Amino acid sequence: MTAIDPVDLTRRLIACPSVTPLEAGVLNVLEAELRTIGFEVHRFTAGEAPDGPVENLFATRGSGAPHFAFAGHVDVVPAGAGWSSNPFEPEIRGDLLYGRGAVDMKGAIAAFLAACERTAEHKGTLSLIITGDEEGPAVHGTVALMDWMAARGIRPDMILVGEPTSEHRLGDTVKIGRRGSVNIWIDLPGTQGHVAYPHLADNPITKLGALIQALKAMPLDEGNDWFQPSNLEVTEVSGGSSACNVIPGVAHARLNIRFNDMQKGAGLVARVRAIAEDIAPGAKVEAKISGEAFLTAPGALSGIVTDAIRSETGLDATLSTSGGTSDARFLSKLCPVVEFGLPNATMHKLDEAVAVEDLAILAAIYERIIRAALG
Amino acid sequence: MTAIDPVDLTRRLIACPSVTPLEAGVLNVLEAELRTIGFEVHRFTAGEAPDGPVENLFATRGSGAPHFAFAGHVDVVPAGAGWSSNPFEPEIRGDLLYGRGAVDMKGAIAAFLAACERTAEHKGTLSLIITGDEEGPAVHGTVALMDWMAARGIRPDMILVGEPTSEHRLGDTVKIGRRGSVNIWIDLPGTQGHVAYPHLADNPITKLGALIQALKAMPLDEGNDWFQPSNLEVTEVSGGSSACNVIPGVAHARLNIRFNDMQKGAGLVARVRAIAEDIAPGAKVEAKISGEAFLTAPGALSGIVTDAIRSETGLDATLSTSGGTSDARFLSKLCPVVEFGLPNATMHKLDEAVAVEDLAILAAIYERIIRAALG
Repeated sequence: MTAIDPVDLTRRLIACPSVTPLEAGVLNVLEAELRTIGFEVHRFTAGEAPDGPVENLFATRGSGAPHFAFAGHVDVVPAGAGWSSNPFEPEIRGDLLYGRGAVDMKGAIAAFLAACERTAEHKGTLSLIITGDEEGPAVHGTVALMDWMAARGIRPDMILVGEPTSEHRLGDTVKIGRRGSVNIWIDLPGTQGHVAYPHLADNPITKLGALIQALKAMPLDEGNDWFQPSNLEVTEVSGGSSACNVIPGVAHARLNIRFNDMQKGAGLVARVRAIAEDIAPGAKVEAKISGEAFLTAPGALSGIVTDAIRSETGLDATLSTSGGTSDARFLSKLCPVVEFGLPNATMHKLDEAVAVEDLAILAAIYERIIRAALG
Repeated sequence: MTAIDPVDLTRRLIACPSVTPLEAGVLNVLEAELRTIGFEVHRFTAGEAPDGPVENLFATRGSGAPHFAFAGHVDVVPAGAGWSSNPFEPEIRGDLLYGRGAVDMKGAIAAFLAACERTAEHKGTLSLIITGDEEGPAVHGTVALMDWMAARGIRPDMILVGEPTSEHRLGDTVKIGRRGSVNIWIDLPGTQGHVAYPHLADNPITKLGALIQALKAMPLDEGNDWFQPSNLEVTEVSGGSSACNVIPGVAHARLNIRFNDMQKGAGLVARVRAIAEDIAPGAKVEAKISGEAFLTAPGALSGIVTDAIRSETGLDATLSTSGGTSDARFLSKLCPVVEFGLPNATMHKLDEAVAVEDLAILAAIYERIIRAALG
């Protein structure tokens, strides 16, 4: 058996144009490798067009406790136009391997498989939770995998998500939590009329001004040891037409709140709804909670990860909760979850690229993590 | 010579589809009638496409002081779809004469010509200031007529504008002034960014909320004996895109201020500019003053008009300054100006119509006004 080369495997994964929700052969590549190194592989499809169907994969080796799992996604965002080389024909130029998904996150999956090969003897259970719907609506991916696992009584004790968390150098940042996110749409009612007769109209834009002020003045929190303060931004407003002499009948606002673990999405929505109703009785408020905040308090799992990083790179990784959301928001309901992966400078951009050397170092770090978790 | 029948003349004027800025033969009809009843008629064209050319008419009879003038417009707003009969084929059904311009304001012009015919012997000078550009941009109409008059040393002592000022019954309302109006466009600068990293962005919608609040809180005035308080309305806002995770780089507001004679347009613009600059340094503020407020304080002219109304209808007309703008905003720079005309319920609407009886009564009122002014 030839050893798994993380660079070669990354190339083969990139060569499958698995733009969400397409599988494009990428799970076949993964399944073949996983079977070679002793994993039992389960694949299933969830959802329908337009968000699906989504192909998911669960692979497991060994049995019993402890159960350590690696989670990730094989889908990628669209390439966009303007690449220096074909985004789905991986190419090494200088020290870098170029291709869509190189850092987000086919490179990390390849590094993890290389680490798995080198740790054939381990205690307990080693699993991979792989979705094809992280970059999309994320409704038929990790959530469906968790349902599938729950139906079979499978519940890991620790999960490492391989998202590209490193900022400037591989190993500088580990995420131990993520803020939650909620989008809220508000329609403020008014009464349309001629601007020369304001007493016959009721201007919803006046209420919009009061609403924006009240929302920005809404006390949230000061943050805590692990989270920055929660924050609300109004991301879109509209109201009125091209007619200069008309007071419009409705105004609209959309806002987003990124919130820490001192808040719950539903509580924030209720507070926003109360403010809107107070300012504009009858206001229509619709909300979509993308994810709740979560924190894996620094402890055993983060210690394993930072120790492994220190051993391979000499860096003391920062424990962070900043940035956007990831599927860790779902997995954190099962057990402690930490995220660690490649430098993220080029993710989602043109000419996404990973340093060839980083793939080898990441495989070594992941190997140390597996040994520490299941040694 | 046959007497001028205001109903018949209104019909002939309506039959010319003089939608701004088209003349469509309407001034030819007017000129022929005016010459028949002893007026000297001057016509000239001003402006170019797309706002012109606009055909204007100045007619005068007699000489010396006092100089009483009637002002009006022969242009009409577009008919719109859905009329019960052809808007440019005047038709009497029941008590009403239907057609575009019936009340705004071909009916008043016909009534005034009938009144002029009956007052062939008068002191001083009787003039008609007739524009074809009142419903449009109003740049090549009354303003051009005033330039034309100024160049010839012509300056009336009193002007009656025949706009449809009556609200419910002919004679219930006379306008002795109008509020001014200014439209202001504001672009608030910000720094675009990801909503998860608000410290790297600068949300212009937050500033927009503060701006709307500050503008609505800007002290204007309490009004006075003849004017309601000045009022500011934000008539349009926009900012942001369909992307829920983006803080936009710019937000936009448009506002309108209707102001009384305690304010000047330029002063209001300067105050709005200072508020915008204070809240969002670098804000772009553009303004267009549609007209300044004016008041013809109750006195000789309004007395003549209300006396004439009382004699013909028994009504004590209300002296008002409410509503939108009219060309009286320009003419008020010359001398006292009062506006009085037909009931305005159907102006600019589908099935615009004038009561046949009102045309006869209006002609009688105008006749009394001419006799009182030049008796």
